Amino acid sequence: MGNADYTYPSTNVEHAHEVAIPPPQPFFKSLKASMKETFFPDDPLQQFKNQPPVAKFKLGLQYFLPILEWGPRYTFQFLKADLISGITIASLAIPQGISYAKLANLPPILGLYSSFVPPLVYAMMGSSRDLAVGTVAVASLLTASMLGNEVNANENPTLYLHLAFTATFFAGVFQASLGILRLGFIVDFLSHATIVGFMAGAATVVCLQQLKGILGLDHFTHGTDLVSVMRSVFSQTHRWRWESAVLGFCFLFYLLLARFFSKRRPKLFWISAMAPLTSVILGSVLVYLTHAEKHGVQVIGELKKGLNPLSIMDLSFGTPYLSTIIKTGIITGVIALAEGIAVGRSFAMYKNYQIDGNKEMIAFGMMNIAGSFTSCYLTTGPFSRSAVNFNAGCKTAVSNIVMALAVMITLLFLTPLFHYTPLVVLSSIIIAAMLGLIDYEAAIHLWQVDKFDFVVCMSAYMGVVFGSVEIGLVIAVALSLLRILLFVARPRTLVLGNIPDSMIYRSVDQYPNANNVPGILILEIDAPMYFANSSYLRERISRWIDEEEDKLKSSGEISLQYVIFDMGAVGNIDTSGISMLEEVKKSTDRRGLTMVLANPGGEVMKKLNKSRLIELIGQEWIYLTVGEAVGACNYMLHTCKPKPKPVTTSESETWGDNV
Amino acid sequence: MGNADYTYPSTNVEHAHEVAIPPPQPFFKSLKASMKETFFPDDPLQQFKNQPPVAKFKLGLQYFLPILEWGPRYTFQFLKADLISGITIASLAIPQGISYAKLANLPPILGLYSSFVPPLVYAMMGSSRDLAVGTVAVASLLTASMLGNEVNANENPTLYLHLAFTATFFAGVFQASLGILRLGFIVDFLSHATIVGFMAGAATVVCLQQLKGILGLDHFTHGTDLVSVMRSVFSQTHRWRWESAVLGFCFLFYLLLARFFSKRRPKLFWISAMAPLTSVILGSVLVYLTHAEKHGVQVIGELKKGLNPLSIMDLSFGTPYLSTIIKTGIITGVIALAEGIAVGRSFAMYKNYQIDGNKEMIAFGMMNIAGSFTSCYLTTGPFSRSAVNFNAGCKTAVSNIVMALAVMITLLFLTPLFHYTPLVVLSSIIIAAMLGLIDYEAAIHLWQVDKFDFVVCMSAYMGVVFGSVEIGLVIAVALSLLRILLFVARPRTLVLGNIPDSMIYRSVDQYPNANNVPGILILEIDAPMYFANSSYLRERISRWIDEEEDKLKSSGEISLQYVIFDMGAVGNIDTSGISMLEEVKKSTDRRGLTMVLANPGGEVMKKLNKSRLIELIGQEWIYLTVGEAVGACNYMLHTCKPKPKPVTTSESETWGDNV
Repeated sequence: MGNADYTYPSTNVEHAHEVAIPPPQPFFKSLKASMKETFFPDDPLQQFKNQPPVAKFKLGLQYFLPILEWGPRYTFQFLKADLISGITIASLAIPQGISYAKLANLPPILGLYSSFVPPLVYAMMGSSRDLAVGTVAVASLLTASMLGNEVNANENPTLYLHLAFTATFFAGVFQASLGILRLGFIVDFLSHATIVGFMAGAATVVCLQQLKGILGLDHFTHGTDLVSVMRSVFSQTHRWRWESAVLGFCFLFYLLLARFFSKRRPKLFWISAMAPLTSVILGSVLVYLTHAEKHGVQVIGELKKGLNPLSIMDLSFGTPYLSTIIKTGIITGVIALAEGIAVGRSFAMYKNYQIDGNKEMIAFGMMNIAGSFTSCYLTTGPFSRSAVNFNAGCKTAVSNIVMALAVMITLLFLTPLFHYTPLVVLSSIIIAAMLGLIDYEAAIHLWQVDKFDFVVCMSAYMGVVFGSVEIGLVIAVALSLLRILLFVARPRTLVLGNIPDSMIYRSVDQYPNANNVPGILILEIDAPMYFANSSYLRERISRWIDEEEDKLKSSGEISLQYVIFDMGAVGNIDTSGISMLEEVKKSTDRRGLTMVLANPGGEVMKKLNKSRLIELIGQEWIYLTVGEAVGACNYMLHTCKPKPKPVTTSESETWGDNV
Repeated sequence: MGNADYTYPSTNVEHAHEVAIPPPQPFFKSLKASMKETFFPDDPLQQFKNQPPVAKFKLGLQYFLPILEWGPRYTFQFLKADLISGITIASLAIPQGISYAKLANLPPILGLYSSFVPPLVYAMMGSSRDLAVGTVAVASLLTASMLGNEVNANENPTLYLHLAFTATFFAGVFQASLGILRLGFIVDFLSHATIVGFMAGAATVVCLQQLKGILGLDHFTHGTDLVSVMRSVFSQTHRWRWESAVLGFCFLFYLLLARFFSKRRPKLFWISAMAPLTSVILGSVLVYLTHAEKHGVQVIGELKKGLNPLSIMDLSFGTPYLSTIIKTGIITGVIALAEGIAVGRSFAMYKNYQIDGNKEMIAFGMMNIAGSFTSCYLTTGPFSRSAVNFNAGCKTAVSNIVMALAVMITLLFLTPLFHYTPLVVLSSIIIAAMLGLIDYEAAIHLWQVDKFDFVVCMSAYMGVVFGSVEIGLVIAVALSLLRILLFVARPRTLVLGNIPDSMIYRSVDQYPNANNVPGILILEIDAPMYFANSSYLRERISRWIDEEEDKLKSSGEISLQYVIFDMGAVGNIDTSGISMLEEVKKSTDRRGLTMVLANPGGEVMKKLNKSRLIELIGQEWIYLTVGEAVGACNYMLHTCKPKPKPVTTSESETWGDNV
């Protein structure tokens, strides 16, 4: 940053461009525009414009039921592909559904019910072509832990079941309302880092819960945190069942091996997809042949034949548990939504089509409302199942219909086959699925790229593992929000210097070869000027000026005359920001400095104009670029006499000298 | 924005400047730097550097007790000024103190006690030269309403008194901790608009409460909202006392008249300053002579002679009301802090000296802790009293000491004089003070400059007047935070065009004469790329590209080839933002477009580099300015053959055509 070899950039001030104040807009027009940008950024009504009423009605129906749009163009080619993928995901859905229902402390058959009705609803309303609908481990565990705090599932299974249906209903209502009210962006506040940490934590917790099944324990803690589980496991080492453990680890090894091969060769995805069903069949046959159920290996037992019974009469809104139910519904609903939408978006991006977040929310909501009427609990689009669906080559949501039909056939005819399925196999299936959710590579990536994101991720993980799922989530969301607030509350201010041989001014931290300009301090402010940062900015700016004056005084160079603020990154300003600028202007005046603005944006110019601050600063001290501002200042510095420092006789100045 | 007469800006690409990646910093060094910027933006330890231990100790003492710094330089000149201003504020402090103590449902004598000890503490520890310490109406009302919910002050005065002392203690501890933990910026989250609305609302509520005194009513609602008060007032019209009301309105008229004259001629500030004391004397004499106390005019009655009794033994930490006390302490503490610091800052700015927010908080905290030990309740730096102090020409905090001595003399000898002071005069004094706090001009200014700030202000006002003080505060803070979050969640994206005859590119909305460049879409993104906006930005960018392609297709012009992102206002990027950019890059590739970045800042370049995204984008597609990026793109467009659109055979494309 040596100034010795500094050559003054061009100073032809007559070439300066004027900074425009954007044309004034009527209040309601600008309000409407900003409302539209906030709630309808995707402009969903655009296609309805200039259409006859019949076409509008048809488009409206197609909007809510996308199947009406793509159904008529469905071909035999697609059916073949969807048939294969549908059967593949059904083979995964059946054992997974049973396992997760156990995890939620619900009757295992609910897992099958939940793979029948909701996929049919989604196939009609959903806009993703790759999402496979089903229950997920995290939401199941959350349901168990949140409802389990109020009602014991073993002592009062019917009440517990009804609460679960009601919670599913509220989750659906909440999801659909978010979509209808266009509040989908709430889901965006769960950052990628939060989700990585939260999912890994939940997966760890779910794995820990499986120790009960693997070790064949009858009594187990209701807590989900690491400490409670470890205490519970190691306090009853004498009750561990080695038969169960051996069986469990064998199947776990088999499942992980199958996944390992599928990962190495994506063409072999079906090995991994079929592995859970193979395990179930193998395990059941083994138990049936060895009568292991009489030697400490727990089995599923009887599953009722028949399709979903209606449960609309079981929804209970008058219970004293209503607030817990609503809380459970909202939290599980948001988590399910976040996973489902993230999964839908990922595959859509991969195949280059658009999915509409708000429309998806409505589809998820309707699917869960319908589910709560027909003995299902919370469903969404789980990643593992959707990935299998995608790999199996699905073309449309018809694969969900195929899966639902396969599950229907199972429900009608094949449930007795699951009588001897050992629980330990289900535990192995859950653990194998969960280990895939612990994305340590993503965590390493976070550490390398953004330390703060890593901290958020680890807080979510630690919160879930050592506290509870809710604690982890709250910590992670709070930290993420804090980061946004800190960004606004503590904006960076950068000193700019001249890039040699140009009229370009950039941060001297980033460009060590940038030269600062004698007599001129150029500051870039990196955030909107809001109430949250106006005191900080006032103090920080005055400290920059102090430091610069001290530096110049000690080096005996030309004294500071101009302070230029690069406003390019100041997207907006509120009344506190305006007052702050006004105070800075007054304080620079008192110090005998001139305040210059460069490149203020449209919003800022509007506010400066309305508040009359523009007259205080002087239109002649507002430039389009930093280069032009520096040019003008240099011109003044070198052609005019330096201004004498103002002689102030106010009491404050006297005080400053005397005391 | 006509393109017909468009002349291509210079395209000499060899002049392009390279974008630097800032030199890597060790993790802990950058962590330390950002911590320092967050918690120590004022760099308080700077003066301690390179000092011998004795000097360090002396500086440290001076840091906590500023009186040690300015005391030795105190002159007789200053004493004269401080004596006059001290006596002036004492004449205001005595009636105001008694009035506000009544407002807090506390014994009137507490108002005098609170003007004795706290000013002495502040004089030693405070860094403002103009602040006059005392109780304030809003905090008094809040104390009454929050503690009054738990304990009735009339039925159980001793318990109520002890709770008030304890709440003051917690307020002090909270204030001091904020200062010690350097969390002073929390106060910044109360925006100017919030404070205007909140203060006006509180003033309205306080005025409404005075209807009890003015109308001479014995029974009155405990609610503070407009509806309760109006119902209470008009349900007992038969109990209104006209003597009381006439007296009240006469004094109110006198007080307002005095203020009107003082405002017109600032030299006559003492008329307004002395008016409350004059009213008290006049009112007392009038009552004494006419024996009006026997005809329905309520009077203060006996005030105990003597200095503050110790109250340290009255602090009660073991009561069942502890949570209410702590809540009261924290809320009143924050409100008091916000007023005191804002007042201190305003006068410091006016006289051009610095006050240190965190140090002030410690001083306020210590003053309230000491107050709670000596029968005082919550004090701060009220605006009205400080303004009188300033106008009376105070030089240092010695004016607070003078005031405390005057109050001491009153306590020791003059309390019997207040026996016949009518309560209605106190009500008039409160109303006159409160009317000055309703700053309707500021509200009009907010409406003109920033509609959203006006909404925040009115919400705070309505919340306080129709709900309660806490509701108003919560609504206003929530709205203010929502605005920050919305700014980040819905950043503006602007299309840039070329300012004629320059290499400068600016928003076409702000500069209607800016021309867009054929074949190139230039987008400026106006906020950091964070998880909260990454999905929005992805969708919004893709919509911009769609719209531009549609426009170009329908006009038959050159097709879109390049998308340039001006990253100048993107202060930071997190991992979600990185993923978003990566997806945008992939999607532009699929469309056969080239993505170009212009002017990414230091933080952004660091993250792009660490995440290897820089390699995916290609270092050759990152430019220092939009002008250089456009130059390079134009060079490619006009010298090279247009790239053929990539032929994609992926299933998705096939789907897109067939279906």
